[in-house]
This record gives sequence, C-alpha cells and structure tokens, in this order.
Amino acid sequence: MASIFFSSSRRKMLACSRPLPFLFTRRRLHQPYNSLTESDVQIFSEILGHNPSLLLQASDPIVHAASTDWTGHYWQAPARLLLRPQTTAQISALLAHCHQRRLPVVPQGGKTGLVGGSVPTVAHEEIILQLQYLNQITALDPVLGIVTCQAGVVLENLQDYCANHSWLVPLDLGAKGTCQIGGNLATNAEGPYFRKYGCLAGNVLGLEVVLADGRILDYNYRLSNNMKDNTGYKWHQLFLGSEGTLGIITGVTLACAPLPRSKQAAFVACSSYDQVLLVLQKAKQYLGEILAAMEFMDAAIWKLVEASGRHQMPLSVETILSESAVQEGGPFFLLIDTHGSNANHDQEKWQTFLEAVQDDILNGVLAQDIKQYQSFWQIRESANPTVAQLGYTYKYDVSLPIAQFQDWIQEMRLERLGPLARNESSSLVNANWGHILDGNLHFNVTTIGKREVQKDVLDALEPYLFHSILKRGGSISAEHGLGQAKNHLLPSVHDEHTLDLMRSLKALLDPRMILNPGKFLPAK
Amino acid sequence: MASIFFSSSRRKMLACSRPLPFLFTRRRLHQPYNSLTESDVQIFSEILGHNPSLLLQASDPIVHAASTDWTGHYWQAPARLLLRPQTTAQISALLAHCHQRRLPVVPQGGKTGLVGGSVPTVAHEEIILQLQYLNQITALDPVLGIVTCQAGVVLENLQDYCANHSWLVPLDLGAKGTCQIGGNLATNAEGPYFRKYGCLAGNVLGLEVVLADGRILDYNYRLSNNMKDNTGYKWHQLFLGSEGTLGIITGVTLACAPLPRSKQAAFVACSSYDQVLLVLQKAKQYLGEILAAMEFMDAAIWKLVEASGRHQMPLSVETILSESAVQEGGPFFLLIDTHGSNANHDQEKWQTFLEAVQDDILNGVLAQDIKQYQSFWQIRESANPTVAQLGYTYKYDVSLPIAQFQDWIQEMRLERLGPLARNESSSLVNANWGHILDGNLHFNVTTIGKREVQKDVLDALEPYLFHSILKRGGSISAEHGLGQAKNHLLPSVHDEHTLDLMRSLKALLDPRMILNPGKFLPAK
Repeated sequence: MASIFFSSSRRKMLACSRPLPFLFTRRRLHQPYNSLTESDVQIFSEILGHNPSLLLQASDPIVHAASTDWTGHYWQAPARLLLRPQTTAQISALLAHCHQRRLPVVPQGGKTGLVGGSVPTVAHEEIILQLQYLNQITALDPVLGIVTCQAGVVLENLQDYCANHSWLVPLDLGAKGTCQIGGNLATNAEGPYFRKYGCLAGNVLGLEVVLADGRILDYNYRLSNNMKDNTGYKWHQLFLGSEGTLGIITGVTLACAPLPRSKQAAFVACSSYDQVLLVLQKAKQYLGEILAAMEFMDAAIWKLVEASGRHQMPLSVETILSESAVQEGGPFFLLIDTHGSNANHDQEKWQTFLEAVQDDILNGVLAQDIKQYQSFWQIRESANPTVAQLGYTYKYDVSLPIAQFQDWIQEMRLERLGPLARNESSSLVNANWGHILDGNLHFNVTTIGKREVQKDVLDALEPYLFHSILKRGGSISAEHGLGQAKNHLLPSVHDEHTLDLMRSLKALLDPRMILNPGKFLPAK
Repeated sequence: MASIFFSSSRRKMLACSRPLPFLFTRRRLHQPYNSLTESDVQIFSEILGHNPSLLLQASDPIVHAASTDWTGHYWQAPARLLLRPQTTAQISALLAHCHQRRLPVVPQGGKTGLVGGSVPTVAHEEIILQLQYLNQITALDPVLGIVTCQAGVVLENLQDYCANHSWLVPLDLGAKGTCQIGGNLATNAEGPYFRKYGCLAGNVLGLEVVLADGRILDYNYRLSNNMKDNTGYKWHQLFLGSEGTLGIITGVTLACAPLPRSKQAAFVACSSYDQVLLVLQKAKQYLGEILAAMEFMDAAIWKLVEASGRHQMPLSVETILSESAVQEGGPFFLLIDTHGSNANHDQEKWQTFLEAVQDDILNGVLAQDIKQYQSFWQIRESANPTVAQLGYTYKYDVSLPIAQFQDWIQEMRLERLGPLARNESSSLVNANWGHILDGNLHFNVTTIGKREVQKDVLDALEPYLFHSILKRGGSISAEHGLGQAKNHLLPSVHDEHTLDLMRSLKALLDPRMILNPGKFLPAK
C-alpha cells in the first residue's frame, strides 16, 4: 500500500534540502540522513552493555518480523538494525548518538496501529527501537488510582495489574494482548470506552519523554502524582498521538477509574439505521451513567464472524431475515455495555431500557453471566481479525456525524463499490463496525483471497472516500492515526497556518528529523 | 502583593536584551516594548469601526476598574487603553498591529483567577483586550451534546443554555456568574466536578485561537465537531492554562455531559481527618458512579461562614464541640454531592452509604430538596468571598497527597503561623477548604481588617510553604494558575529542560513577547 502511495512524496522529502518556508521557523532542515556504519553499531552495542539480545542485525529473523506490522501491508525489507534498550538512560544515549550522526529511528511498540506508523519506510534506512523491555509498573496509588509505568508494558498486563487492585485502566482495545501503553499514547488510541472513562488527553497525568537529541523531559512523572497541576504549558499533550515523531514516550502516569462491580451487556438487532439511532438515544436516557460502550456492527460483519465458526452467535442474520424486512445493509447489531457499582440498580435500569426499546428492535439477548458478557465482546473484537484473514482489507477509521453512518456507507457502496464490483476485478466484501457512541466508524473493504493492494480498488475508494468524509464534517482519522497511510492527506484537512505550526513544532523538537521519518507529517 | 514580589524580576526582564540561551531556540527576544502613540490609537479605532464604546482611554472609570481584579491585590495604575473587539477578525487585526509595533497586550475575561493573570503589570504599559463582546453560543449538537461558543460567554450563561437543552457543561466554579469560558480555558480552571466529568484537556474538542501576530488558528472549531480526531499534533492543548501568553482563545467546542436527572447532597461532620479519609473511601465505594464532588471545609472556614450570618447552616461547630471531642482543626465538614439518572437508585445508594458511615461521622444532614441542595453549595461557595471580606487573604491553591491535607495544615500552623501570631503583627485566621476528591486544597491566611500585603506575614509563609508542598510531592498551583503570583517559583518546580521547552514554545508562538508579559513564565 505504502509503496504505491508515497514513493513520490518520499522522493520529494528526501530531495528537500532548501529551508522550508515556515512562518514559524526558518531553520534549515538537515537531510538526507547518514548511513549506518560499523562504528555506529559499536557505539550502540556499548550503550546496551554489549548484550547481544538487545542489538540485532538485519539477518536476524526477529528483525525481519519487526520490519512489518501485523497487517503485512507495509513490508519492504528488513531494517538494518534493531535496538532493544532496557532503560530510559539507554534510550537517551542511543538517541543522542543518532541525533548527532543524523541516523533515523522508528520507535516500535506492539505494531497494532494499522496505519504503518511503527514500521520502517526503508527509503530512510531507519533503526528500529523497540520499547518492550521498558515493562515495569512502578507505582499504583491505592487511594487515587493513579498508576505509573514504563512505556513498554503490554496494555492487558497493565489492565490486569490495576484490576487486581480494584482499578480500571481507562483504555481498552481489541489488541490489548499485544499493544503497549507507550504505543497507545503515541498513537492516541482510544477504543470503545472513550465516553465513559474519558480520553487519554484527560487521563494522562504525567509523561516521561526522550527527545530526539537525547534530553529527557519529565512532566509530573517521577516526583509527583497530582490530579490537578497548573504550573506550566501542557507540552506533554503534544506527544499524545504524535506517532513518535516528536520524541519517544518512555513512561506514563495514568488516572484509573474504580473497577466496576457490575458489568452487563446485550446484543440487540435493529431493522433500520433509524432504529439504531432511537436505541442509542434511549440507552443514554435509561441506562444513564452506567452506559459504558455502544458498538455498532452491520449485517456483513456479523455474517462473516458467524461464518468463521469461532463464536457462538446470540443472534442470526438468516433467522432475522426470514422473519422480518430490514433496510439494505441490515439487520444492524448493537453491543450495549454497562459498568456500574450496584448490580440490582443496573438490572433495573436494563429492565426499563429493554421495555422502552422493545418495539424498536427486532430481537435482543442479554448476557446471562460474565462469561457470556465476555463472549459478546469477543464477537465484537473478532471483527478486525476476521476480515484480515479473508483477504487484503482497505481499512478506514473515520469520524462521522452519528446520524450519517449508514447513509455514508450506502453512498460508498453506490458510488464506488457497485461500479467496482461490476468490473469484476475482485470479489469484494464491505463490512463495517464502530464505536457509535463516539461517532467513530470502521469502514472496511476486503478483497477476498487477495494479499496485495490492488490499484483499481484503491483508486475507486480514494481520494473520493476521504473527500466525502470531510464534506460531511467528519474526520479522516478518528483513533488510528496517520502513519504512512494518511499523512499525505493532511493538506486537505488543515489550513496552511496549522500545517506550518505542526512543522514548526517538529522542527523545534526534532530539528534533524531523525524520529520516524515519512510518517505523520506530509512531505512538503 | 505583586509590587513586593516581582519588582526585581520585572526589572530583570525589561533589562534582558541579550538572546536567551535556549537549548531549543536561539532567537533574539525583542524587548523592551514600544510606547503607545496617537497613531496606534487611530489604527485601533479604525479596526473597531470608530465605535467609542469599544475603545476606552485611561481616564475612563471602566479602564480603572479593568486594571485590577476583584482581589484588588494587583492594582498599580490604570491601563493606557482598553479594547473591546466584537469579532475574531478584529482581534486578529488588533494583534497584528500590536505585534508589528511591539505593543504589549493583556487579554482579559472575568478577572476571577486570583493570581493576577488578567490584569496589567504597568511596567509594560499593556493594552487591555477584553473578550466580553465575543459572547455568542453558536451551536449545540442535540445528539452528542457538543456546544460551540465564543470565548467571552459567561460560564453561567453557557451552563443555563446547555441545561435548557438537557446538557451539562462539564465545568463549574463559584465565580460562574462572572468568569468567561475563554478565561476558564486560558487558566485551565477545573473546579469540583473534575473527577466526575473530566478535565478541560479531555472535554475541549475544538479551539479557535488568535496568535500574537494576528494569525487565526482553528482546531476543529468551525467545520467539524467530532468526538475523536487523530489528524495532527494536539497543539490546541498548549493554550489551555497558558494564561494568554501563547495566543488569545476566541472560541471553543466543548463536549457536555447529559444533565443529571437526580441530584443529592449532604453535609457530614467528622471529628478527625482520619475519619474524613474513611468517609471519602466509603463514598467512592457506596455512591460509586454517581459521586460527583466531595468538598472539604475545616472548622475555621465553617465558623467564619456561620458568623457571616448569610447562610442557614445545617450543622454548628459549637454544638458539635459541646458534645464531642475533636482533633485540632476539627470538626471537619464534607459536602458530598451526587449526580445520577434515577432518583430511586440514588436514594438507595445514599442510604447504604449513610448506614456504612454512621459510626465514622459526628453528624450528617441530607438535603431535603433541590433548594436545600443549592443552599449547601452556596455555603461551600461562600468560603472565598467570606475570607476576602474579612481582610487581606494570602491564598494558596495547592495539590497534595490527600492523606496529608491536615498534617500539612498543622505543619504550617506550628512552624509558621504560631510564631507569627506570637509576634502579634496581625490578627490572623487560617481557614481552609478544597476539592478533596482531586487532592486539591485551598489554604488561606487572612489578616483581619488589613487591606494590604504585610511583608512579615508573607516572609513567614513563603518560600517555606511552597518548598514544603513540593517536598510532599504536591503542586504549588492546582487549578488557579501562575499569573503574577507564582511564576517566579517555576525554577523550583521544573528542571531546566522543561523551562527551556516552555520558553521555546513562547518564542515560537509569540516571538516579540507581546502577550501578557510578566505572567506565567519566570523572567530569566
């Protein structure tokens, strides 16, 4: 995917030796990069204590694996070098050398971001820097529920640790068993509990960051864990969602929520998208403060998950279709999840809610126990791996006004997928899901049996798809970020003042542009 | 207060003509400023459409009033000029001229920040720029509860407007009838509902800002209102809490919460601070997701509010003391507030909570109706005006580990206030309150009958007080910001890397240092 999209812009970026005409900064950008030498490798080895498991060369299969993410879309060639520091001080020393020598670096967590932000672009010969050995949970305040940990802690491990102390990490993702908290922060991953537990911008109380030149910045990370602090610019926020282009996050202090004592979930099926919206409104009204998440799945993804045979489905599309008329694309399924502190109260709220929607839904199944609750979430979370297994998937993570989800999907089907299917270039499946409470849709087009990107499919979808999203007031990247997949689109999203400011911030914090080149910011 | 503290550092700042030795930026800082001329006034008048009510000169009583805040601490002399633009475009044109001419500007909202951030420092001859005529609420998304408004909207007006549409602005302050939302954002004001509804960093979805040179920046303000957007650096966060030193906030898009259908509050009295902590833990446990705020008041502030005669107090210190032994400083009062969607459920939660704490408290009164609920909050909110009326008040807004509130207050009394009282320099009252759920304490020393700062009192309190807070891992400014009152302390709070970064961000966004000079950043 990347090779088709970005080769021209990458060339432009590499060729850029004149000072960029920033309004904010007039610094010369130092490019291109130097090539790695044996002397560099020796210096890195010394910093890492001559430990062979912390410095791996291109021929190592681990480096091969680290050079692509799990989508497989961004594979080009093995990176020259993979570094696995164990401390912030080592990262500082490694970066100071890379900065001085102008060697580009790609920071890497669990590689689950889906937009190619965590893998090399080869054109720049990046060194991969993995965070996985910075995996200590260093403190948990039992009164406030503030947890401090290093960036390489796997999200699920952090969740389990905090849950054992009755606290809930305010972030959950399908990839929790693989992704690392540092990567979650660097990509500003949000997930389904965004409305209930707030966004990372609000829950991150402290951050430790190593800048490109090796300086270590500390924002309320080592010495304090205050909920409120108003003693300076909130510069730490710049690193959230910056995809490692401004600095490398090495530690975080995070505000947790009390662990819910009562969890409940139901799947309901609706015949039309208008019914979906009605159920959403009534869920807010009757479930109130316990409403934790509301996940949308259309008939296509439901059928694919059902066909995978891996899940016991509580509802069947075929049965519904044999009994009821539904809107095109339907039936639509909603996974409604509640978190509360009093099971009796939660059950009563559920009862009044289900009574209120009984005429609006085709069918509904309430989880009977925590096991079924978990199995419902497994159905939802299997959406992504299910389509990935079927073939190359063109994935679009967008924000849209909630009322327009299905209308926009229909527009895409009529305008883009219909004509494409008639060309018979591929066997296409369009399957969609998302966090409807947040207006966040995951739109997916899978080319069955294919493993490579196809130019005709891509051309049919883009840039039409993105322009259509922007025209409707949406966002072309809701929670997965830009990486290599969407950074070229930023000039359509932001005006020149904003782009200038972003470039200036980059020039300020990483003047030699060594951090994650070819990602996030578009080439100019 | 300011004149004693800062005259030397101000002189240093004015005298600073050499380039600051930033690690990040090596730009020359252009100071001192130019003086205002008749030609400048003519240009401003033209930009403001020659409307005499939008441009006021020093002789006008309105300018006199605008040159100090309601504490009266920071008064020096009337500002030379007061501008009251009506549009973002006018602000842009005004700032472009000030930038070009090197004329310093102090942006001003409701002036309720308490740290002198919104008033002139006279040494710089600032022009005051009031935001009050940018007071339009421009949109409210009925499904998502996202409100868009201009910076000059008074917080209470915004609350009322949203409440009429069943949405709750996720911010409340005692000063809501006066403060403006733009000022709330610029000072990162948080208030009592921080834990329940999240912080501004999380709830601000969009921002419009005018930079020092007149450029208008837009972060998801005019064209979109997406809950999730990951298409760039989160630069808008820099302006929250920056006290107008990086740019002037002119508009905001804010995520609201559903209006609670059930509100309940109680005052409880505890004999010791350990009991307070126990009640806090049990409130979290039994009230769970409906716990909205928990406000601490010590015996001293309770007695002062009682003595003011303006409130019907639900509990009496004298009665409690006649019946029970209490810890020094006690009895301690807690205002516990809940917001929920189901009154029956909330009442049951209250019942189990009150049963669980009945042996931990001396007494408790549950509000019988919404009128009493409001009167409880009025008691809490009257704390600030009550001490202000009694005399000059040395106010300290700090974060502390919750368990240490009373221990630290006792330390201050023993080490600092006791010796001071023995000197009989003043009649002192130490009265304290705060948002205990957030670890945010408001510590106040009032010199009865005095209207001016006294050097001996100040010297007894500072810098000891701040060092003691930092030693305990607290923050010297929890929610009121730095302004003129605490900016000189930043070198004790942050390391040189962080200070450098803050100065570099200032130099990037306001290279001529025209925005709110003498505030926020310390002179170097």
